[in-house]
Amino acid sequence: MINITFPDGSVREYEAGVTGMQIAESISPRLAKDVLAIAVNDQLYDLTRQINQDATIKLFKWEDKEGQHAFWHSSAHLMAEALQALYPQMKFGIGPAIENGFYYDVDPGEGNVIKDSDLAAIEKKMIELARQKNDYIRTEISKADALKMFGDKNEIYKVELINDLEDGQITLYRQGNFTDLCRGPHIPNTEPIKAVKLLSIAGAYWRGDEKRPQLTRIYGITFPKQKMLDDYLVLLEEAKKRDHRKIGKEMDLFMFSDMVGKGLPMWLPKGMSIRLRLQEFLRKIQNSYDYREVLTPPIGNKNLYVTSGHWDHYGKDSFQPITTPEEGEVYLLKPMNCPHHCTIYKNSPRSYKDLPLRIAEFGTVSRYEQSGELHGLTRVRNFTQDDAHIFCRPDQVKQEFLNVMDIISVVFRALDFNNFEAQISLRDKNDHEKYIGSDENWEKAENAIVEACKEKGLPAVVEYGEAAFYGPKLDFMVKDAIGRRWQLGTIQVDYNLPERFDLEYIGSDNQKHRPVMIHRAPFGSLERFVAVLIEHTAGKFPLWLTPEQAVILPVSEKYNDYAQSVLKLLKNYDIRTVIDDRNEKIGKKIRDNELKRIPYMLVVGEREAQEQTISVRKQGGGDQGVMTCKEFADMVNKEVSAILENIK
Amino acid sequence: MINITFPDGSVREYEAGVTGMQIAESISPRLAKDVLAIAVNDQLYDLTRQINQDATIKLFKWEDKEGQHAFWHSSAHLMAEALQALYPQMKFGIGPAIENGFYYDVDPGEGNVIKDSDLAAIEKKMIELARQKNDYIRTEISKADALKMFGDKNEIYKVELINDLEDGQITLYRQGNFTDLCRGPHIPNTEPIKAVKLLSIAGAYWRGDEKRPQLTRIYGITFPKQKMLDDYLVLLEEAKKRDHRKIGKEMDLFMFSDMVGKGLPMWLPKGMSIRLRLQEFLRKIQNSYDYREVLTPPIGNKNLYVTSGHWDHYGKDSFQPITTPEEGEVYLLKPMNCPHHCTIYKNSPRSYKDLPLRIAEFGTVSRYEQSGELHGLTRVRNFTQDDAHIFCRPDQVKQEFLNVMDIISVVFRALDFNNFEAQISLRDKNDHEKYIGSDENWEKAENAIVEACKEKGLPAVVEYGEAAFYGPKLDFMVKDAIGRRWQLGTIQVDYNLPERFDLEYIGSDNQKHRPVMIHRAPFGSLERFVAVLIEHTAGKFPLWLTPEQAVILPVSEKYNDYAQSVLKLLKNYDIRTVIDDRNEKIGKKIRDNELKRIPYMLVVGEREAQEQTISVRKQGGGDQGVMTCKEFADMVNKEVSAILENIK
Repeated sequence: MINITFPDGSVREYEAGVTGMQIAESISPRLAKDVLAIAVNDQLYDLTRQINQDATIKLFKWEDKEGQHAFWHSSAHLMAEALQALYPQMKFGIGPAIENGFYYDVDPGEGNVIKDSDLAAIEKKMIELARQKNDYIRTEISKADALKMFGDKNEIYKVELINDLEDGQITLYRQGNFTDLCRGPHIPNTEPIKAVKLLSIAGAYWRGDEKRPQLTRIYGITFPKQKMLDDYLVLLEEAKKRDHRKIGKEMDLFMFSDMVGKGLPMWLPKGMSIRLRLQEFLRKIQNSYDYREVLTPPIGNKNLYVTSGHWDHYGKDSFQPITTPEEGEVYLLKPMNCPHHCTIYKNSPRSYKDLPLRIAEFGTVSRYEQSGELHGLTRVRNFTQDDAHIFCRPDQVKQEFLNVMDIISVVFRALDFNNFEAQISLRDKNDHEKYIGSDENWEKAENAIVEACKEKGLPAVVEYGEAAFYGPKLDFMVKDAIGRRWQLGTIQVDYNLPERFDLEYIGSDNQKHRPVMIHRAPFGSLERFVAVLIEHTAGKFPLWLTPEQAVILPVSEKYNDYAQSVLKLLKNYDIRTVIDDRNEKIGKKIRDNELKRIPYMLVVGEREAQEQTISVRKQGGGDQGVMTCKEFADMVNKEVSAILENIK
Repeated sequence: MINITFPDGSVREYEAGVTGMQIAESISPRLAKDVLAIAVNDQLYDLTRQINQDATIKLFKWEDKEGQHAFWHSSAHLMAEALQALYPQMKFGIGPAIENGFYYDVDPGEGNVIKDSDLAAIEKKMIELARQKNDYIRTEISKADALKMFGDKNEIYKVELINDLEDGQITLYRQGNFTDLCRGPHIPNTEPIKAVKLLSIAGAYWRGDEKRPQLTRIYGITFPKQKMLDDYLVLLEEAKKRDHRKIGKEMDLFMFSDMVGKGLPMWLPKGMSIRLRLQEFLRKIQNSYDYREVLTPPIGNKNLYVTSGHWDHYGKDSFQPITTPEEGEVYLLKPMNCPHHCTIYKNSPRSYKDLPLRIAEFGTVSRYEQSGELHGLTRVRNFTQDDAHIFCRPDQVKQEFLNVMDIISVVFRALDFNNFEAQISLRDKNDHEKYIGSDENWEKAENAIVEACKEKGLPAVVEYGEAAFYGPKLDFMVKDAIGRRWQLGTIQVDYNLPERFDLEYIGSDNQKHRPVMIHRAPFGSLERFVAVLIEHTAGKFPLWLTPEQAVILPVSEKYNDYAQSVLKLLKNYDIRTVIDDRNEKIGKKIRDNELKRIPYMLVVGEREAQEQTISVRKQGGGDQGVMTCKEFADMVNKEVSAILENIK
């Protein structure tokens, strides 16, 4: 008999050789139906693989990333099986699971091409094969046998992969008529794969090397229920419409230029006006919490990063150092603001009465990313963190967390993110080597975070062992309008930098003490936040934030002058207004501007010009009646201050 | 006879061999008394040197830089003569004129030291020698003779210098008993040197090389009148008190850290609050002139600077390029914002109706300076320009200049710079090679600038040949509170970048046209501007701008609670307020805070706490009476809006 320990700490006895599936069955038939994968002592296993010794296990279902991963990896094999049936000449490269679905890189053979129009037939074949409920069967194989087997089939890519593997470590998986070189794990059989969608075809160089052959990459996704696939496809369609890169271009919010450099966003006037309002908004909140704003340069001397310890982690995959005419004088593009802020802390003697000292900066940092990794504003090489570092006494940590949580909650609510939750990352208490800082301080900070979440009623998952070596942290996830989760704000305790920079304060005992440092960023970065905000609102920004609050539509050119006088008046009332004075019919102007995401349309014609009024239409909300400019401005300004007042 | 052409274009005949002094005498005895140097065909000459051919000349007096330069250079020789008389062992290095005065690097000989206390005796000797009215006599000498002459005197430094010179190019200057190796020019004799002050002593490596001997550098200044020296010393004293580096430290406005890097300013909270208010102020003015603010990254790809032409001028004395993991992908720290803005212009098709397009950015740029050149905030390696680029049609240049001049004037007046003038830099009409852009466009732009200055009544000096190769410009100089002149704002026309970036707009004729680009920066840079502002105001910033508008002084600790409630109230009224709750007597608190440059002191004691009032003292202005917080806030806010309203 062996002892199996479950995640809740409970232990059960099983016969040696028991499988994950048998364990699931021993708990409930429902679980046996839902379970997709298992981790045995933190290593992923097939559910059908035997467990021969005492172990700690975790069972994964569809809701777990690991469950989905096994499901999609198995689906990649299923697709390969279908492809082999339909295209017997085809050679296979690699076929992994990815964040959403899977792909397989294949070589259809000289002169053969897989087209979009072929995908339906492949999907059909996959469903047909899945219904055969074939088991995924794992076998271990010697290197020589593997080479022979795949060599006989002329699977040149597989042979190349096997050559790179060590003998004794090679496993195959077979389902139906298809056998693949694979580490696993897989789901027990093909039955749960009920819904299949092949999404796209792309070219991909073998092993990412542009000097090697270009293979055909087929992307797909599968689900255990048709309804789930239908929902996903609707989401995909909706996400496409909301893609911040598309909306950013349509609305002239930001741009990229290959000449300036990949992944370096340039904020265009409308995007900049959003950014400035976001900054001003956060600045006001932070002022009320006694933050002090600073500004530090975009580079830092090598010595700064030697002191902070970052220099050791600075590698070939980064922006390379900047040398100067002076010997030995080397700079880095600053990848974070904390070391600079430590020198500011150190610039004056600090007493316990000065703490907490909250140093804030909209700090622009640069981090190299491979060009293939770049994505709109969410993955860039230069971005601005809404950064702050709080230097405080250990007994002040909890109150500071409460304050930051308040700030984050105000920010999220002002931007209609009403659905958010948190993850608390704590230390692995069994691993004493990994962490710096005293047990007492860790204990204090970890309790502070957990208590703060409780007090604020913030739904939070606790993850043990997920803390950085220098301190525990709290991450905020928001759910956007179409249900996608985004990681935004962060609060991170740091015992490391105060140590490295030898930061001190004089306590009430007249002795020197080490302050605790807390990093925090409610937006995360302005770039990422605006990207998420665009996708959340589909570009229909809150009235207080949107670059243009109203567009004036003269019914004909005759009223362009009156439109100009309305524009001037509204500008005086601080309403952000533009004119559409194109020589078009008013019906077309209204239709065009409905698409432009400007909250109000102000139609002006003969009657309005005579009566010195405007006809107000709300975007998507139809006619709001005729009013004077002042009445309209009062209405807008009231609406804006109501939103912003509500928050406080 | 030869023809001498004067700066106004008039021509007179003189005997060949005439000297500058004789020409001055031929014009007026007064001029002959005042003249200090002459340029003959743009080459500086002694006034006693013969002119043998037709020439264009310019005579220089004390008011001219060239005149002062000859005066101070001659004074350096006079100091050397005095030193030689007093210290016969002394060896001489070099002794140039500098911006304010002169220095001489000397080697007093093993074991000898020149101390501050020695300076008075040297000054006395200099006056004594000057009164001898010795002529400065120029002689040409062969290299061999020069080597022998200085070699005999064991003047090792001079010998080293002569070795580096070409035979036939070597001249000596002698006055009294002192002969120096020197290119000249000098004033005719020592008589005009009436007032002498030796300012300081420093160490200086021979030829700036730390492996060579360290010489003694003696700094001095001289004047033709004692009153001028007295005034200069007062100014020097006043300038020391106003030094922005000193005040910046005292007021915690900004800091530098060697660990972060030399010449990289970090804005501390109080300095940052000034900077943010300056930005917000300029932003508002610019918005009313329809500027569009953008933000671009702190780096740019090499290709951008190859296109702009800057890459060719990028040398070893700059921050070196940043390489990346990708082959051939190279970045520069951006030294200016214009190339980025050109790519923004190019991002959309532009029509004549879209112009002028005014793209503004508070753009942070990096330029390497040698560490010895760095000086507080006025000479730094990273700074933020209040930059904008106006893209317009050629016929819009004048109106754009008028607008920018209005903006600059509003900015200067809001900051109490009421004394400013301009320099117009135009092309040298005889040099057609040098300039790019059509004659017609140059003509148009140059006229536009001159006319704009006339219309605005701006006192402006026109300098021909001072324009950059790519366009004419207008520079603004302000005079500060102690009479020093600082160059601040600039407006610069540019025909080059639109060409290089192939910028276009579609004209009303439906054809493609090239826009004109205008660079402009009212502050110049925020760093430099704040430095000048500190020196101008001695840190007593205008009420609307100052980081702290009021300080509350509780008369004893008993009233600290009441002081806190006053603080809260005033913050609600947007008055920037702090508390001095040190356990000190009120008299001391008032005295201490008089030094702190906070405009208002608010004393609170028993009576004030009872009556819910404050006793208001104006900095330097004494008692303003007792009032409620609301009354005080109204007064301050009214004063602030009066300043800002007045400006518009």
